[in-house]
Amino acid sequence: MILEKIHASADLKTLTLQEMRTLSEEIRQELIHTVSRNGGHLASNLGVVELTLALHRVFDFPRDQIVFDVGHQSYVHKLITGRYGAFSTLRQHGGISGFPKRAESEYDCFETGHASTSISAALGMARARDYRGEDHQCIAFVGDGALTGGLCYEALNDAGNSGTRMIVILNDNEMSIAPNVGALSASLTNLRISSEWQNAKSAMHRFRRIPLVGKSVYRVAHATKTLMKTALVKADSIGFFETLGFEYFGPIDGHNLEGLEKTLRKAKNFEGPCVIHVKTKKGFGYDKAEERPEIFHGTPPFYVETGDRTELPDCPSSGHVMANTLMEMAEKDRRVVAITAAMPMGTGLDHFAEKFPDRMLDVGIAEEHAATMAAGLAVGGMRPYFAVYATFFQRCYDQMIHDVAMQKLPVVFLLDRSGIGGEDGQTHHGLFDFAETLPVPGMTVLAPCDARELRQMLKWTAGDHGPVAIRYARAGNDVPEKADTVFTPGKWDILRPGKDLALLAAGTMVRQALLVAKALQEDGLQAAVYNCSSIRPLDLRTLETLAGTPVFTLEEHMRTGGFGAYVEQTCMERGWTPPVECFAVGDTFLQHGRHTLLMRDAGLDAVTLRDRILRRLGGRREA
Amino acid sequence: MILEKIHASADLKTLTLQEMRTLSEEIRQELIHTVSRNGGHLASNLGVVELTLALHRVFDFPRDQIVFDVGHQSYVHKLITGRYGAFSTLRQHGGISGFPKRAESEYDCFETGHASTSISAALGMARARDYRGEDHQCIAFVGDGALTGGLCYEALNDAGNSGTRMIVILNDNEMSIAPNVGALSASLTNLRISSEWQNAKSAMHRFRRIPLVGKSVYRVAHATKTLMKTALVKADSIGFFETLGFEYFGPIDGHNLEGLEKTLRKAKNFEGPCVIHVKTKKGFGYDKAEERPEIFHGTPPFYVETGDRTELPDCPSSGHVMANTLMEMAEKDRRVVAITAAMPMGTGLDHFAEKFPDRMLDVGIAEEHAATMAAGLAVGGMRPYFAVYATFFQRCYDQMIHDVAMQKLPVVFLLDRSGIGGEDGQTHHGLFDFAETLPVPGMTVLAPCDARELRQMLKWTAGDHGPVAIRYARAGNDVPEKADTVFTPGKWDILRPGKDLALLAAGTMVRQALLVAKALQEDGLQAAVYNCSSIRPLDLRTLETLAGTPVFTLEEHMRTGGFGAYVEQTCMERGWTPPVECFAVGDTFLQHGRHTLLMRDAGLDAVTLRDRILRRLGGRREA
Repeated sequence: MILEKIHASADLKTLTLQEMRTLSEEIRQELIHTVSRNGGHLASNLGVVELTLALHRVFDFPRDQIVFDVGHQSYVHKLITGRYGAFSTLRQHGGISGFPKRAESEYDCFETGHASTSISAALGMARARDYRGEDHQCIAFVGDGALTGGLCYEALNDAGNSGTRMIVILNDNEMSIAPNVGALSASLTNLRISSEWQNAKSAMHRFRRIPLVGKSVYRVAHATKTLMKTALVKADSIGFFETLGFEYFGPIDGHNLEGLEKTLRKAKNFEGPCVIHVKTKKGFGYDKAEERPEIFHGTPPFYVETGDRTELPDCPSSGHVMANTLMEMAEKDRRVVAITAAMPMGTGLDHFAEKFPDRMLDVGIAEEHAATMAAGLAVGGMRPYFAVYATFFQRCYDQMIHDVAMQKLPVVFLLDRSGIGGEDGQTHHGLFDFAETLPVPGMTVLAPCDARELRQMLKWTAGDHGPVAIRYARAGNDVPEKADTVFTPGKWDILRPGKDLALLAAGTMVRQALLVAKALQEDGLQAAVYNCSSIRPLDLRTLETLAGTPVFTLEEHMRTGGFGAYVEQTCMERGWTPPVECFAVGDTFLQHGRHTLLMRDAGLDAVTLRDRILRRLGGRREA
Repeated sequence: MILEKIHASADLKTLTLQEMRTLSEEIRQELIHTVSRNGGHLASNLGVVELTLALHRVFDFPRDQIVFDVGHQSYVHKLITGRYGAFSTLRQHGGISGFPKRAESEYDCFETGHASTSISAALGMARARDYRGEDHQCIAFVGDGALTGGLCYEALNDAGNSGTRMIVILNDNEMSIAPNVGALSASLTNLRISSEWQNAKSAMHRFRRIPLVGKSVYRVAHATKTLMKTALVKADSIGFFETLGFEYFGPIDGHNLEGLEKTLRKAKNFEGPCVIHVKTKKGFGYDKAEERPEIFHGTPPFYVETGDRTELPDCPSSGHVMANTLMEMAEKDRRVVAITAAMPMGTGLDHFAEKFPDRMLDVGIAEEHAATMAAGLAVGGMRPYFAVYATFFQRCYDQMIHDVAMQKLPVVFLLDRSGIGGEDGQTHHGLFDFAETLPVPGMTVLAPCDARELRQMLKWTAGDHGPVAIRYARAGNDVPEKADTVFTPGKWDILRPGKDLALLAAGTMVRQALLVAKALQEDGLQAAVYNCSSIRPLDLRTLETLAGTPVFTLEEHMRTGGFGAYVEQTCMERGWTPPVECFAVGDTFLQHGRHTLLMRDAGLDAVTLRDRILRRLGGRREA
């Protein structure tokens, strides 16, 4: 086996082309094997095996520096930079991360997780290199999907203007997570069509330098119009990068090692910013993933032979329930329109789109635009629902305040995957959304305890309201103690009575609070559990009645700026007894692993919470 | 006078061209007159007189809808849509806003203030129109400077792909606030050079359709290479918009009413997205503003004859002090590099650039990119200082968390214009930055009470540290009570002793706290004043010693998520007595006007604070 002998990328340089092909095959087997057990990003990694190997053959990492955009396509890079031995721990608690991590290896020079950052980061590193008088290359490795993010454009514009020496590897697999949207994407598609394009390009270049066009030439042109149409669009795409000041190489076949190395060597010493446009196939080498790359983008464990998932979810996700509810609403209300930033499947909106294809807008990886465009829709009389992962909602913070909230527009932000995430780790937790939304005048902030309550909240949004943020977890299972009632903002319901203390639980923590209350019974304590699904407004009436009871708040959110802090502030302002303690995520970035393990890391598992409560109440009694 | 007879834009349609020219002149006089008294945005408005009038002649507002990007160039629009009579109250408390406001007029359909939002907003409105089966036009009016913002690109990409009927007016004045940066800007500059370009364009189009280039033709091409170079860059710029799916009209002269109307009429019924590229001259018609457009972009009151400011600042601004300090540091430390997002003058970094032009990076209106690029610089071993207005810092919220803080990088965010702003109003206050930074693990959050302390803090950042945010006000005058001491995080100094109560003041509120303390003396109360310039970490030792004293916190920030809430939370967690009351901005968006009046609106002026404190302490005594 060759792979087990590769400890650093330098070990690749002595291999023959035949050995490299064998190595590619071994890497693919390893990727399929590990991801089928641990879950993870498969299709994107299978697609970049040759490209990653060619990069490591041509460049001298870690002296040369590479930033993987989003970073979930860095598995191959990890396998050949000293992490093959630990690869079976991929995405597991305490194991290898599914994203680049500086603490893991000097080969990981910049950490990623959200899209479209790599060109900015590589440009910063390239400028640092120039300031320091060094001469290594700085490379941004970016998928075509991430190019729809404005951040990429800002970076291309700055890099092209400054002329800084750097390389952008455009990994063009014709789709990022979902098939790409956007005009630039359409142009790239055309750019891909002909493999003889590279030759045509130089002819075209000579050709465009001619100042005057004679009549006869015009006639020829007219006759070959159809033939040239494709080429013209191609010229436009090249023009896009060249307008921005980049030299353009490509497109080249991303699965041909020799061709890749040849072009990379040409670009290696190029004295300015350049783009290398590489065509790769997502899922390459594993038929199941090639056939359904969107399923194998990020996948839970699966059977390699069939591609079927090892475990099926026991109920529809919150996103699925959301989409179904929105569909019912859209049938009655022609103003309802759904928005996603390149996540139709992840958010569940693909279900909505089946019925209302025209009323689902996929804007690409462009959360800022999604939010401001939603504001425009609302001004135009529509009722936009922007479904977005809580962590990516951070991308439209200013747009939420400046474009939506200041104008008091009825835009609903549906914040999926909020709270502590899991195997994707620190860049994917949704732990800042209360801190983002609670200080904003006029925002309604909601956190359903389950998918059924999410459904009720959505129905409530059919009426008149200003901006609303609803944060929910991925899992859609119901809390049995919660009755299926009409949702009213500013009203909490009590799921379990108890005279000794009260647990005020936000959203996903309701389940946990019920477990804790049950456990506390063994300690002789009757704990009331409140489902505090209305965060802003709080249920002031209930809060006031709790004046004599020791109160604890529970949330899957940062302590500072969270639900507990908001309850605290409200109680203090009104002269009511504030909570005894606010349980939340402490002052640290949580890492990756199973949700239950991360909850333990955060001290939010039922066992720890019970201990913490007993300690506090004991301490109180002693005091 | 024609202007006083214009009450709605329909009134323009019957005017002759000569009358229109007279009206243009009257409007310019009115702009110069009012802005010279009230301060405001002058150069940009003088530049768009004819363009705005032409738009109102060709389109049917408010049926047709126009979104002004940033919005400070909407004065002409306001003057001809029923607000001439109130125009003398421009930017004054309770008067006409310097930005579009829906409450002011139905002609203002979408509110703006931050750059690059207009295309997204107009696209949303255009989509709403299509959903509703209406047929009006939706127009985004955007400057070339705002085009460096990635949000514009996200919107162009989405609009071009969907083919939605809308118009982008590209108001190209070759500079936005500062001369434009970026590669696209360079291309636009070339696009401007030749006025015969429009004709050349169609020739070029025909020309590019020819498939094969003969040898002889190639020779001709070679000979005319120099001549054509410009034209080629032009073609690229057109290519930029056309790649993104937009039809391109222009460039046209923005001061020629007839030409403008002709092109606008052509575009009015165009059945898809189109860009109209209009060349305007900033400050047109007022020689002082034409000569120094960056001075007359946003100006305080001035003498019309000389262009000199009516009142000169009595001391250098905080930004100026910051730049001078950074300069001293840069001399000793080659790692120091300064970053601005198109605000070299506003942030004071123009002073820094005089001495270190190569170490000041102006990335254009691109805060997201600035932050991530800063992270790249830091990874590369540099020490980046990103100076940005607090309100625009909202634009890089995710990048601050995801790219800087998660990697614990030594990036310093210098948040100028923090706290309650003034005449620019609600979109320009800096009231969310504590809420943004305090929940982020590893962030140091500082708020100097004056420019001297800002200087000390900057010197502290020369040592080792993770990410830092320093928020300060524009005014650079010193607090006399504050000694010029070395700054130490986690240590507050006491500026005035007092046994009866303690005022914990953050940053700009120190001055106010000292006034309040003085006033309380008349009530027989000795109030201690603490300069709480270290917000994160708090000075725990001091907080603990205050256990027996009634404490009040003071800040120019939203109440929720602010300094007071952080003190409250910290006290509660440690079992210390929390503050009696936290003085901060309540749950509302403050409007525009003089800072002192807005402070009163927020209940943060010394008189109100004294009353509030007395009421609280009285209430306490009664209780």
